[in-house]
Amino acid sequence: MKNVAIVGGTGYGALELIRFIEGHDYLKLTQIISQSQEGHLLEEMYPHLATYIDAPLEAFDFIKIRDKIDIVFFATPAGVTKEMLPQFLDSPIQCIDLSGDLRLSNPSDYEKWYGGKPASQNLLDNAVYGLSEIYPNEIQGAHICSNPGCYSTASLLGMIPAVQNDLIDTSSIIIDGKTGVSGAGRKTSIMTHFSETNENVKPYKIGKHQHIPEIEQYLSKEANQSVVINMTTHLIPMTRGLLCTMYGRLNQSINVQEVHEIYQKFYQSHPFVRVRNLESYPATKEVYGSNYCDIGVYIDERTRQLVVISAIDNLVKGAAGQAIQNANLMNGWPVDLGLRQIPVFP
Amino acid sequence: MKNVAIVGGTGYGALELIRFIEGHDYLKLTQIISQSQEGHLLEEMYPHLATYIDAPLEAFDFIKIRDKIDIVFFATPAGVTKEMLPQFLDSPIQCIDLSGDLRLSNPSDYEKWYGGKPASQNLLDNAVYGLSEIYPNEIQGAHICSNPGCYSTASLLGMIPAVQNDLIDTSSIIIDGKTGVSGAGRKTSIMTHFSETNENVKPYKIGKHQHIPEIEQYLSKEANQSVVINMTTHLIPMTRGLLCTMYGRLNQSINVQEVHEIYQKFYQSHPFVRVRNLESYPATKEVYGSNYCDIGVYIDERTRQLVVISAIDNLVKGAAGQAIQNANLMNGWPVDLGLRQIPVFP
Amino acid sequence: MKNVAIVGGTGYGALELIRFIEGHDYLKLTQIISQSQEGHLLEEMYPHLATYIDAPLEAFDFIKIRDKIDIVFFATPAGVTKEMLPQFLDSPIQCIDLSGDLRLSNPSDYEKWYGGKPASQNLLDNAVYGLSEIYPNEIQGAHICSNPGCYSTASLLGMIPAVQNDLIDTSSIIIDGKTGVSGAGRKTSIMTHFSETNENVKPYKIGKHQHIPEIEQYLSKEANQSVVINMTTHLIPMTRGLLCTMYGRLNQSINVQEVHEIYQKFYQSHPFVRVRNLESYPATKEVYGSNYCDIGVYIDERTRQLVVISAIDNLVKGAAGQAIQNANLMNGWPVDLGLRQIPVFP
Amino acid sequence: MKNVAIVGGTGYGALELIRFIEGHDYLKLTQIISQSQEGHLLEEMYPHLATYIDAPLEAFDFIKIRDKIDIVFFATPAGVTKEMLPQFLDSPIQCIDLSGDLRLSNPSDYEKWYGGKPASQNLLDNAVYGLSEIYPNEIQGAHICSNPGCYSTASLLGMIPAVQNDLIDTSSIIIDGKTGVSGAGRKTSIMTHFSETNENVKPYKIGKHQHIPEIEQYLSKEANQSVVINMTTHLIPMTRGLLCTMYGRLNQSINVQEVHEIYQKFYQSHPFVRVRNLESYPATKEVYGSNYCDIGVYIDERTRQLVVISAIDNLVKGAAGQAIQNANLMNGWPVDLGLRQIPVFP
Repeated sequence: MKNVAIVGGTGYGALELIRFIEGHDYLKLTQIISQSQEGHLLEEMYPHLATYIDAPLEAFDFIKIRDKIDIVFFATPAGVTKEMLPQFLDSPIQCIDLSGDLRLSNPSDYEKWYGGKPASQNLLDNAVYGLSEIYPNEIQGAHICSNPGCYSTASLLGMIPAVQNDLIDTSSIIIDGKTGVSGAGRKTSIMTHFSETNENVKPYKIGKHQHIPEIEQYLSKEANQSVVINMTTHLIPMTRGLLCTMYGRLNQSINVQEVHEIYQKFYQSHPFVRVRNLESYPATKEVYGSNYCDIGVYIDERTRQLVVISAIDNLVKGAAGQAIQNANLMNGWPVDLGLRQIPVFP
Repeated sequence: MKNVAIVGGTGYGALELIRFIEGHDYLKLTQIISQSQEGHLLEEMYPHLATYIDAPLEAFDFIKIRDKIDIVFFATPAGVTKEMLPQFLDSPIQCIDLSGDLRLSNPSDYEKWYGGKPASQNLLDNAVYGLSEIYPNEIQGAHICSNPGCYSTASLLGMIPAVQNDLIDTSSIIIDGKTGVSGAGRKTSIMTHFSETNENVKPYKIGKHQHIPEIEQYLSKEANQSVVINMTTHLIPMTRGLLCTMYGRLNQSINVQEVHEIYQKFYQSHPFVRVRNLESYPATKEVYGSNYCDIGVYIDERTRQLVVISAIDNLVKGAAGQAIQNANLMNGWPVDLGLRQIPVFP
Repeated sequence: MKNVAIVGGTGYGALELIRFIEGHDYLKLTQIISQSQEGHLLEEMYPHLATYIDAPLEAFDFIKIRDKIDIVFFATPAGVTKEMLPQFLDSPIQCIDLSGDLRLSNPSDYEKWYGGKPASQNLLDNAVYGLSEIYPNEIQGAHICSNPGCYSTASLLGMIPAVQNDLIDTSSIIIDGKTGVSGAGRKTSIMTHFSETNENVKPYKIGKHQHIPEIEQYLSKEANQSVVINMTTHLIPMTRGLLCTMYGRLNQSINVQEVHEIYQKFYQSHPFVRVRNLESYPATKEVYGSNYCDIGVYIDERTRQLVVISAIDNLVKGAAGQAIQNANLMNGWPVDLGLRQIPVFP
Repeated sequence: MKNVAIVGGTGYGALELIRFIEGHDYLKLTQIISQSQEGHLLEEMYPHLATYIDAPLEAFDFIKIRDKIDIVFFATPAGVTKEMLPQFLDSPIQCIDLSGDLRLSNPSDYEKWYGGKPASQNLLDNAVYGLSEIYPNEIQGAHICSNPGCYSTASLLGMIPAVQNDLIDTSSIIIDGKTGVSGAGRKTSIMTHFSETNENVKPYKIGKHQHIPEIEQYLSKEANQSVVINMTTHLIPMTRGLLCTMYGRLNQSINVQEVHEIYQKFYQSHPFVRVRNLESYPATKEVYGSNYCDIGVYIDERTRQLVVISAIDNLVKGAAGQAIQNANLMNGWPVDLGLRQIPVFP
């Protein structure tokens, strides 16, 4: 049994971490840290957690963490872990960072897409990228794990089989993303105001989404060449769910059965990626509350475009679920420990 | 380990049974029965179940069930179990009926509120009413369990402490119910057609809801007098969730702290009923996907009305979750086995 | 043609005023006033108004209003008009106040339910209550009109025929209200945060809603006796729409046909109140975007309760639409001028 | 004043026609035709129309139409007008067909994408394509007008300025469409079942949408070369609204200011197409209930992709609103007669 702390304990990422840790055989939630709500009970803010969490929220205190905690999940906004994590480098504590601070290996990319000073090179060098299905070996035994962004997870799982197998012209990739509102967190804004979000579809952060360089970094790595993508993201009137529709021009005379077989083989040993049957395509409700990434493939014969569609629950496979999956990998536990939950449907 | 069959395996009740059985230590899903879809895989209809269910749907065959099944859940529409269940009376198989066929002890009530011929008196005599928190002793060791209706669960759990303790004039009870659309099942209709249900609140079955006599039957029993209620039900633009706002005129000079204490004591040993703190009230999202019934109490001093508000997930505590809870009780297992899941929030 | 100004020009009430004024034959929108956004174009905040409003938002300046404006709509939060309106008392400008400042004739009620200092007695004495169908004579020619609250409009239109005709025991009235989120305005909060409001029904302001004393004041007046009600309000996951389900114990041996006839006669000359056919009940979508109040009546014979259900669009008949209707009445124009729009369905 | 009949009077297209005809100065709704509901009142099915429509629904009878009707709107499913319209060819009655029967000039395209026998060549030859902003001269004085599909309207208005001006490589066009559920009409199905559509985004008809050949036909015409597109359509959990995100590779060194200027000039005399300011993009809620098509343009400098985003209300500019606009054009009336309504927001 490992003792777990969550830093940033009042956001939606933390809520999902708590939900999955509760059902995990080897993880014990020992401490929840929130600078802003120190001393309060989490149930004051979230009555649905009554009976689950007794201890009050605590301020961050490295000494206290060092003495009793084995694994820390950082469910913090961008900009926090780059300051907090250096002191963990010399400790044996496993750190899993759900924020974007350690995702970009090139510091100047961080400055450009996130703004502000990037994490130190030393910290970046010590972090592995936690895209569980793609980098399981790197993650196993890792000390610091940088959990991928939600769009990055859906996009990379959808496109890596294609670029690794050189199926498409990598200069032609277009990603059209749709996400529910919970991705914006609990901070209130007009963007997340019910009256203006309900019955509405709107694009946002066009060409500026901070997951773009993250996707490019790992597509480039897997394609063995520099990949630049065009991604447009849209806000959808639902709480959870993220669907990416991805387009790439085929550069060989492959048919859809062959592409489908490539995808199936690619993910055959990975329980959380479900390649849909041919002519069946993912829907976000079919992964609701679960750690699955469902992927469907289609070839538009008229334009010779490959269309790949992937769906995740942005708060689970796109955040807390994958973080637990990485904790499993880091510790050599079964990858689906605590995560084998059927999607909540309907 | 008990072998489980689900009859009516393609409806929403069955889906939730499957979800909870999957995480249950002592239940093994062995057979799923659907007359209309015999031979098909459930994943054809519900791709989100891919990797969970391999066996095809089967036709109902009592002999096959008798040989290998220990517990049968009937997630069937009204009118089915009254025909199917008699042959189970002489078998040791535990039967849990999620339909309304066995809920009304007076056959003429069934004819009036459901229409059609009621179940045989013998069958009715052999069924216990599975309101888990109220009748745990009757349920323990039962052979046939009639699982309560969704409105009945929320209403009875909310009002029984008041009527047992003679807090209110039982002739004054008004129940204003609000439910999500999944309560209407998977059958398509204009009532459940997205375009006309979204951005809409509408009353339905005014004064005619078939849960009314069920609520009256058990309120009368607990009040030791005949109770007649006025219930109006409303359809709300959401998938899951059911909230009852219940009104009764206080017949004694009690204050809200005292009422609150009565409720807290009443449910203190029942993990799935959470009496909210004073001045905190339930919301359906706070029980989403879980087996909780949250209850809040308020006294309107100006009119001396007691207002009790209860919230459940209609598909869980209002159907499949309570059915699992009853299976636990029938078998003497911990009441929360397989059900200790934190609500999915947000 | 009358020149119109809107004070509080950036809220949802103002948006709907603009929408209806645009199609009104005798009203010309001349000035939009917003202290906080002075100098900005409304289309910066609301791109859907592009091509409709050219002039920038202006600061409030009584002198400028006095010189060119005939009618002012105050779509301001509570607490503003009690300060602004006194200077209009000696001018010929017609003032329609959509806030709650002038609704309660007893200043101590304002202090209790709204908090803060009430409007001056002089101001209160000069304001008529703009419940258009009930007080058309008082409104005609009025100088200052206090536009009713949204719950008050739906509740009073639903219950006044019953209490005027002494159909029910006035001490038994219970109002269960359900409203969409737009009633909370544009101010962001967790209460209106999409992720927590969607797929959720929750009660709010239990026993404390500021429309309670307003409803009691006018029910008392029409019943010729002091009426105290019990009202519980609920937030529903939709943008627009408000539905009140109202309960009262019948105090005479009347049947539902007779009650229905009373209601039909009561509203026969009022185009915006539509009494539904027997056994047909209102739904909020059926009044969406329109100035209608639909009313249905039912008698629960088993409990001898009268159930009255009324539905409005909270931003139209519950705010801006009724304000235009009052402007029509104040000026002796046809009551439905600029308002004869079919509900937007589906 | 022209007498109007609607054929297919019980669908959502008809509802919106009725709503706009009601506010139109020169159109009088004289007859509503529904084979399936002959003799019934429309308000039985749609209570929100009470007080608007008195006459019962009638069966189709050409003789009766010929004697009293000037304009017929066919709001019928595919396959009806190709049979009904031939008899109108020799009459002076103006016919506006909202179905897909006359949209494809190549009969073999109809067979391929719609299935079934296409309309006669004579009928096709006599129909003009009613994309109001692009073909106003052809529509003026037309006898038979084929109203465009919803996706076609949004896509063509968005892409025609680009292809006419040869801004993009026409072999690179990708259209990612998102639509609300009302586009599927009133016919119930699992696809439109609230419980499975709410909190869900799903692709549908991938590569098979019948608007694809329609879009290609008119893009080819405007580009003066054969254009083949890749379109993927998605169902979004909202009732109304359609948004197309369109991608095309720039084939010249133009910047976004220049593209924006081209679009603004292109639509400067067309009141219903609103080109958004630079860095502002459309959202479906901002055109809700109105006849606007809002268009935004963006250039992704990193990939040299042009991104065009267009939003319409699928039932208005995508169906009934544009049909009224075409009636205005056919009769030489102001193009915005009866249509100048501010979007319903929020």
